[in-house]
Amino acid sequence: MKSNASLEKIAGLLKPAQSILIFPHINVDGDALGSAAALCRALRNQKKDAWILLEGEIPSYISFMDTAFCTKDADCIMQPDLCICVDCSEESRMPKRAAKYKAGKVRVCIDHHVTGEGFGDYYYIDGDEAATAQIIYKLLLAMEAEIDQVIAESIYIGISTDTGGFQFSNTTAETHAIAAKLFEKGIDHTGIMVRLYQTVPLKTVQLQAEILERMEVLADGKAAISYVSNEMMQALSASLDDAEGSVDLLRNIEGVEMAAFLKEQDDSVRVSMRAKSFSNVHQIAAKFGGGGHAKAAGCTIHLPLAEAVEVMKREMTAYWENQGK
Amino acid sequence: MKSNASLEKIAGLLKPAQSILIFPHINVDGDALGSAAALCRALRNQKKDAWILLEGEIPSYISFMDTAFCTKDADCIMQPDLCICVDCSEESRMPKRAAKYKAGKVRVCIDHHVTGEGFGDYYYIDGDEAATAQIIYKLLLAMEAEIDQVIAESIYIGISTDTGGFQFSNTTAETHAIAAKLFEKGIDHTGIMVRLYQTVPLKTVQLQAEILERMEVLADGKAAISYVSNEMMQALSASLDDAEGSVDLLRNIEGVEMAAFLKEQDDSVRVSMRAKSFSNVHQIAAKFGGGGHAKAAGCTIHLPLAEAVEVMKREMTAYWENQGK
Repeated sequence: MKSNASLEKIAGLLKPAQSILIFPHINVDGDALGSAAALCRALRNQKKDAWILLEGEIPSYISFMDTAFCTKDADCIMQPDLCICVDCSEESRMPKRAAKYKAGKVRVCIDHHVTGEGFGDYYYIDGDEAATAQIIYKLLLAMEAEIDQVIAESIYIGISTDTGGFQFSNTTAETHAIAAKLFEKGIDHTGIMVRLYQTVPLKTVQLQAEILERMEVLADGKAAISYVSNEMMQALSASLDDAEGSVDLLRNIEGVEMAAFLKEQDDSVRVSMRAKSFSNVHQIAAKFGGGGHAKAAGCTIHLPLAEAVEVMKREMTAYWENQGK
Repeated sequence: MKSNASLEKIAGLLKPAQSILIFPHINVDGDALGSAAALCRALRNQKKDAWILLEGEIPSYISFMDTAFCTKDADCIMQPDLCICVDCSEESRMPKRAAKYKAGKVRVCIDHHVTGEGFGDYYYIDGDEAATAQIIYKLLLAMEAEIDQVIAESIYIGISTDTGGFQFSNTTAETHAIAAKLFEKGIDHTGIMVRLYQTVPLKTVQLQAEILERMEVLADGKAAISYVSNEMMQALSASLDDAEGSVDLLRNIEGVEMAAFLKEQDDSVRVSMRAKSFSNVHQIAAKFGGGGHAKAAGCTIHLPLAEAVEVMKREMTAYWENQGK
């Protein structure tokens, strides 16, 4: 892998650029949009022609964010002086926009996912950073850009969402130190918390209640499993997005070390698995051709839902029986 | 109200004291126990005879904390050089221990609840502090005490629990700045998160599923109400503690501005209410002789559960009808 450019180097590339197009990843989330919005507004404040080029829609849970400079019009800048992808460093995460990205006179990647190959001329990829927004904060300092309240809020939302509200293990001393600096910019913390955590769609809550009701606890309480069927989704006019996070509800139960959540698809069943402290869910997912890592893994099972649930129950029970040997 | 002593003054009082008894409030929580544990261990590290005097049990969700110096034996120190209550500044919050507290040669209160009168000789009470543990952190600096990993973890747990994981509106720049310093002490952040947020009792989850299933949404989605009956609790062998936080689940629903949660008691019904952004739940609670403030209030209704639910539904519906006028 190529070595990282310094943030000072990237700031130096941005300085002469007059037109800049910013590319967050597809299925934009709080960190991708927050990173893009913060950088774009800082560049606008420097009187540059800067836009965020999206593909697909902004999900409703982050629709309150600063989207002033978002567009789907790839022609908003014909040939950008600089193209920069944020929270994204591979073509597959921006499939319809890759050609436009490559048309930039200079191409830069900023990301905290180490999976990407860093396509472009320069990049800064650091898997130890809790969020890309945390890198953007440091880039803005290197650019000597003013961080106003709106920019601070975009960065804060990026960090907060990608660290699960400072709970995930990617959270570091620096994450909190940056959050402290963002508070000093007068962010509307309470307003952001209401939008992020107190705006749960009613059908999500209803779906979760049904998922918890169907939950089974196995292996002396060490494993939990539940599912959502197409019928349940239709009854609530819910989508798979509404079932997001359900596997965490199961994993968060006292004593549960391993959780599996099954979602019925058209002709298969998607399985999400989580481990808490000791177990390795990748071992099970891999048996079905799935991927992931010890603490979070997934696979697809080509069986009817009820059978897939039974298969997973057997696998999880067997896992814990083998642990005892 | 008397004026605050400085933390330097309190550090100066602690310096010559050889025997110190620490009093967290009754029904000890993460902040009270974390504050007491951090201070006690710091004093122990200074070769002092220091103990935390408790009344009642430590709840299981914080039983993993540093309880090495906790005791219920008021005679562990016969006449302490100094008694200090933490996260507590009124006699009613330490009813069985108040006499012992008063027996201290010097008495000090440290708290972030401004309701207390600060009984004792010296006190430091600041309602702008997110947690008492945040004050203890600054006191340890004033004492020039070493903050080791175990002390840092106690302080972190105090701050994290009293700010709802940095989500409540009491969170400030300083809260995050202190969290950053605590991370630098090598706290086991992931382990703490697992214990605090991934150890939800199974019966709590089952109870929540039933509560959500019984939920009704009123006033065009602006109000939500649900309840737990004695029968539901008995069926799950659950206690009222297991229903804690249920009102937040209702309040957190998109569009819901006001939530009420009813708990059946022996001969009455306890109502907890929460408001999100606009509404004032104290207005409703006050009609039934209850207390609280605009965003969080409660009252007791002396009616059978089903009737109490109907009464509350009428009140909440009427509240929103009147808002429209």
